[in-house]
Amino acid sequence: MRPSKRTPDEMRPVSFERGVARYAEGSCLVKFGNTQVLCAASLEDKPPPWLRGQGRGWVTAEYSMLPRATHTRTRRESSAGKLSGRTQEIQRLIGRSLRAVTNLPAIGERQIVLDCDVIQADGGTRTASITGAWLALRDCFEWMRSRSIVKENPLRDHVAAVSCGIFNGTPVIDLDYAEDSTAQTDANFVITGSGGLVEIQATAEVAVFSPDELSAMLALAQKGVGELVALQKAALAQG
Amino acid sequence: MRPSKRTPDEMRPVSFERGVARYAEGSCLVKFGNTQVLCAASLEDKPPPWLRGQGRGWVTAEYSMLPRATHTRTRRESSAGKLSGRTQEIQRLIGRSLRAVTNLPAIGERQIVLDCDVIQADGGTRTASITGAWLALRDCFEWMRSRSIVKENPLRDHVAAVSCGIFNGTPVIDLDYAEDSTAQTDANFVITGSGGLVEIQATAEVAVFSPDELSAMLALAQKGVGELVALQKAALAQG
Amino acid sequence: MRPSKRTPDEMRPVSFERGVARYAEGSCLVKFGNTQVLCAASLEDKPPPWLRGQGRGWVTAEYSMLPRATHTRTRRESSAGKLSGRTQEIQRLIGRSLRAVTNLPAIGERQIVLDCDVIQADGGTRTASITGAWLALRDCFEWMRSRSIVKENPLRDHVAAVSCGIFNGTPVIDLDYAEDSTAQTDANFVITGSGGLVEIQATAEVAVFSPDELSAMLALAQKGVGELVALQKAALAQG
Amino acid sequence: MRPSKRTPDEMRPVSFERGVARYAEGSCLVKFGNTQVLCAASLEDKPPPWLRGQGRGWVTAEYSMLPRATHTRTRRESSAGKLSGRTQEIQRLIGRSLRAVTNLPAIGERQIVLDCDVIQADGGTRTASITGAWLALRDCFEWMRSRSIVKENPLRDHVAAVSCGIFNGTPVIDLDYAEDSTAQTDANFVITGSGGLVEIQATAEVAVFSPDELSAMLALAQKGVGELVALQKAALAQG
Amino acid sequence: MRPSKRTPDEMRPVSFERGVARYAEGSCLVKFGNTQVLCAASLEDKPPPWLRGQGRGWVTAEYSMLPRATHTRTRRESSAGKLSGRTQEIQRLIGRSLRAVTNLPAIGERQIVLDCDVIQADGGTRTASITGAWLALRDCFEWMRSRSIVKENPLRDHVAAVSCGIFNGTPVIDLDYAEDSTAQTDANFVITGSGGLVEIQATAEVAVFSPDELSAMLALAQKGVGELVALQKAALAQG
Amino acid sequence: MRPSKRTPDEMRPVSFERGVARYAEGSCLVKFGNTQVLCAASLEDKPPPWLRGQGRGWVTAEYSMLPRATHTRTRRESSAGKLSGRTQEIQRLIGRSLRAVTNLPAIGERQIVLDCDVIQADGGTRTASITGAWLALRDCFEWMRSRSIVKENPLRDHVAAVSCGIFNGTPVIDLDYAEDSTAQTDANFVITGSGGLVEIQATAEVAVFSPDELSAMLALAQKGVGELVALQKAALAQG
Repeated sequence: MRPSKRTPDEMRPVSFERGVARYAEGSCLVKFGNTQVLCAASLEDKPPPWLRGQGRGWVTAEYSMLPRATHTRTRRESSAGKLSGRTQEIQRLIGRSLRAVTNLPAIGERQIVLDCDVIQADGGTRTASITGAWLALRDCFEWMRSRSIVKENPLRDHVAAVSCGIFNGTPVIDLDYAEDSTAQTDANFVITGSGGLVEIQATAEVAVFSPDELSAMLALAQKGVGELVALQKAALAQG
Repeated sequence: MRPSKRTPDEMRPVSFERGVARYAEGSCLVKFGNTQVLCAASLEDKPPPWLRGQGRGWVTAEYSMLPRATHTRTRRESSAGKLSGRTQEIQRLIGRSLRAVTNLPAIGERQIVLDCDVIQADGGTRTASITGAWLALRDCFEWMRSRSIVKENPLRDHVAAVSCGIFNGTPVIDLDYAEDSTAQTDANFVITGSGGLVEIQATAEVAVFSPDELSAMLALAQKGVGELVALQKAALAQG
Repeated sequence: MRPSKRTPDEMRPVSFERGVARYAEGSCLVKFGNTQVLCAASLEDKPPPWLRGQGRGWVTAEYSMLPRATHTRTRRESSAGKLSGRTQEIQRLIGRSLRAVTNLPAIGERQIVLDCDVIQADGGTRTASITGAWLALRDCFEWMRSRSIVKENPLRDHVAAVSCGIFNGTPVIDLDYAEDSTAQTDANFVITGSGGLVEIQATAEVAVFSPDELSAMLALAQKGVGELVALQKAALAQG
Repeated sequence: MRPSKRTPDEMRPVSFERGVARYAEGSCLVKFGNTQVLCAASLEDKPPPWLRGQGRGWVTAEYSMLPRATHTRTRRESSAGKLSGRTQEIQRLIGRSLRAVTNLPAIGERQIVLDCDVIQADGGTRTASITGAWLALRDCFEWMRSRSIVKENPLRDHVAAVSCGIFNGTPVIDLDYAEDSTAQTDANFVITGSGGLVEIQATAEVAVFSPDELSAMLALAQKGVGELVALQKAALAQG
Repeated sequence: MRPSKRTPDEMRPVSFERGVARYAEGSCLVKFGNTQVLCAASLEDKPPPWLRGQGRGWVTAEYSMLPRATHTRTRRESSAGKLSGRTQEIQRLIGRSLRAVTNLPAIGERQIVLDCDVIQADGGTRTASITGAWLALRDCFEWMRSRSIVKENPLRDHVAAVSCGIFNGTPVIDLDYAEDSTAQTDANFVITGSGGLVEIQATAEVAVFSPDELSAMLALAQKGVGELVALQKAALAQG
Repeated sequence: MRPSKRTPDEMRPVSFERGVARYAEGSCLVKFGNTQVLCAASLEDKPPPWLRGQGRGWVTAEYSMLPRATHTRTRRESSAGKLSGRTQEIQRLIGRSLRAVTNLPAIGERQIVLDCDVIQADGGTRTASITGAWLALRDCFEWMRSRSIVKENPLRDHVAAVSCGIFNGTPVIDLDYAEDSTAQTDANFVITGSGGLVEIQATAEVAVFSPDELSAMLALAQKGVGELVALQKAALAQG
């Protein structure tokens, strides 16, 4: 039995609120249970310096947690003066995941920055960030299309992400903080709307895992991402 | 006529939502019009190092803006690797304002950190932060009192803050971003529930101001803080 | 009775020594009692990057204390690797105060940097810095005028600053270190030669203050700045 | 056909030279083709601060490249003043991989630091680092055992790592720099001597990958790690 | 002919003003011509951390230039966020030079910090710093002796320093900025009162130098240090 | 008797291995006994910013130690976030030594960076670095000449370096770590192939030294550099 009383393949309630950041070109407040992430997309007129003159654009992400998003207060990285390795790993992951479904040349020499700020953290902040940032990015591209900055929306597909783990020997999906802390294995899957794999990161926390357990987690993730993509579509259908 | 169409002594709609941060000992989402600040109070078991062994506690504040709280994206201070002078000035001001109404020995050798994270910025973020942080701090102290960590709530009075300025020659209250950008003078007043002055910061942005203009702004601020304290009390009355 | 045995409205002996920095375009060693600040003005051929192409110049300030300006040694900010919040507040204040009396377009696309290095600190270092830096800036502008870099001296007025406080319930002027450490309220006033207010910063250190106390401190400051401006004029009259 | 002319399941020549660092408690120069990494294990008498008093030890890693390990010179991270996100990801990965096969309580309150310095880089530096660091760690533990610091060698199993990718649609193993730069997918597998999975990181660089491709890469990695573990054993057999 | 019109073995006018820093345990304003350095000695109750428990003390130095000590303004190292290599070299040199004549165990577990702040720079700032810091250190030790913190003054000898160079083929002493900029060779000699060599740093700036030129410069330095030590003694004789 | 059992004028076995860094334009692994330094020369198409437009090039050096080059592990400067004063002194010394024998205008507007990475440290790392870096620089210039980037090799002479010290009252050459730790005086000499002096740095570690001792150390160094230059020539003769 999971601490959350969910069945192994049962995700937490997921919701998306688009347009919450009044000044951003696209934004989305995403909730995976008690995990809440505010995703905001900002259009910048220039690509990063190393990409200039190559006729294509870039999508990047920054990730941060409010100090009291967590059970006990976390020190601000601005006070520490540097980003932790964990933060850098996560923001690199978010950026790669979104670029995997973006037609970068179609953006032109511009950059979209996705700010993923965790308002409340109860496990799965990186997967919620990717899933919500896709909607913010989509609305930013629509904003650009409506102003003829791009001809068509440069997104080629949906992308969403979910965590899986081995809890008490059983593969389960979408671990909350209590489950994550005690799982033997921790894995994150980023999958497109058409089922292509974008990123897999699986780590043995306590005990090694077997190829069969990897397959079982992948199957759970495929089902979960299917649900998440359906919810993204429902959010878009609301206008 | 002000850009906001408000009368000179008319504040924007102000609201407080207590308890928004699930894990914090006290929290408040404060809105001054489109300005939104999430204030969270965290109890720490130790005072700052320089206060150890002196038998009293401390109240401090950290202030930050989400990158896309603003009309155009602002660079993260965690990426820049240091806090700007503006950020440091504001968080020092918030801390001093709250300490002015706190019985520090009554806290014991502990520290309360007030995190003021600006979700959306339309002028007056520092005054909204002080006003909302007072509620977060009050609820944190109640949390402590209910667990017998303190005998009585160490707050001695309300404290609230509001900005004033000279706009087209007329003293006005609670400037939004459009007004703030064009005001000749910019002033912030921090005042207690019983009318004591805690902090006054007045700056000639474009033209010097006269002692009479200072008096006029102070009178506006006294009226505005009276309204803010009444709203703080109403928020507390809701339980 | 003040520790310094001065009357409430009595400033410490003030002196200015112009031209002390051999290589600077303008300089002044200012003393407010035992407080000594070396102010040097440097002309730079370029404005700050964010002002380029706008046809006007800039005046900015940097403030620092020698490590042993103080009773006990203070750690160097160059060793700490960053500026303290206090230092940043003070150098922003000095810069704003001088810009308030400068015709910035008349400078052209150039920048004047005022370095205020505290040689000895006995309270009032920021007010001494502003008052002495005005003379360094004035001589820098004369240097520029004599070389036809500017047609007329871009200064529109004198500016000077003084601190006030409430000591044992009495408003007093120009607090030294011993008085400053025990004052209930600490306030700094920056005022022009013609009596316009440029900056007011008043802080309740121990107890809140009343509007009447604010008025009393302002009156003291107006008198004190009048004396400081007369001394600036006397220093200029010496050639 | 791969640029390296190797068959899809053919690794580069791999060699291990133990004991190359005269002063280290354990060391190994590992070569995967032209990739060369010097791995040195250092015993420290204290665990990291956050682990004190818990009766167990820690294994951690630091990773760095000599500036001219690469085709064009890379800037030193000591000059840049901070570690890149890539460096931090890699050293966290190396540390987790080695801890997965270490009996941490058996070390006692001590820490082993594995320094992995890339002398020459031709793809696969992180997988070579893990594979070589295992030997350095093993020899460090033997050094400790011979001095009765530990009773038995705290390693529970071998661990080795290899990269796989999809090159021109074909899953291939152990990509060199030329192959890595043009692969559609890049994956790293860390596997124990008994076949348990420790870490899987798979990233779509150009195109998404399918579950079948993941399985094919995993099969290649299982075969490759089998060969690496055999070579580790041969290196140990040499005394 | 030297630009300064001095003969090859002629130093600039040298003066020492003791006791200029009101709050320091020892201080000296030293002038070598237009070069002016304020040296202040601070007694700290603890030795540096790496020396604790060894029953002896330490003498260290920090060196800095006021931004406008130089012909054109130099950027503050506190703004740059780190010390330049030049600054670090100089402060290490000053510290070593003073320690060479100090009986460190006689200080007890304490540290003396010598702050050498260059008020005006016209060549030879490091040699003036060493020569003036010796007086500040001596007065600090006297201050300690008069309070019975040490039994006897821990200084074993005088120490002074002077620069030499090869200018237009001729060895000369005590180069000012104009000479230093065009010298072929630049050398600094630190010598004790009894003629022992403490430090020699000689650098070919434009052309290599010969053993004979080294000998000639050393002879000049021995004569110059003799004069400096006599002046140190004269400054002490003034009480 | 020296701990190393060498005679006072006997250097350790010295060897050079050219071309060890596959991707560098020039490289050399130099060994002075157990001290091993990998020197790599990198050609950069641009000079440093402050030299642009002056029609000449630059030669600079960076120096670092692998953490476990030493008897006990040394913390990485990239983790510390800044270079130590010692590192900066050494890399400035290496750069100056090589520039002293280079015809900088002949390089054109380019820069050569010499990376000196200490693989193993047993005293004399800076002198080994200079001596080995000369070979790496020479081979880099040959690489440039063979591609007609320069017409002739811009090196005007050999340069090599060796340390000397006073050990138990006797001047000795090429101190290893054990000798260096206990020497009374530590000196480094950089000398050209034709016997010109480039740099002398002599420091009294325990006791001052006399002019005669300086002469004796210089004579030892002249002999030692003669041997080193002969070995550089032999290494070049091998093709």
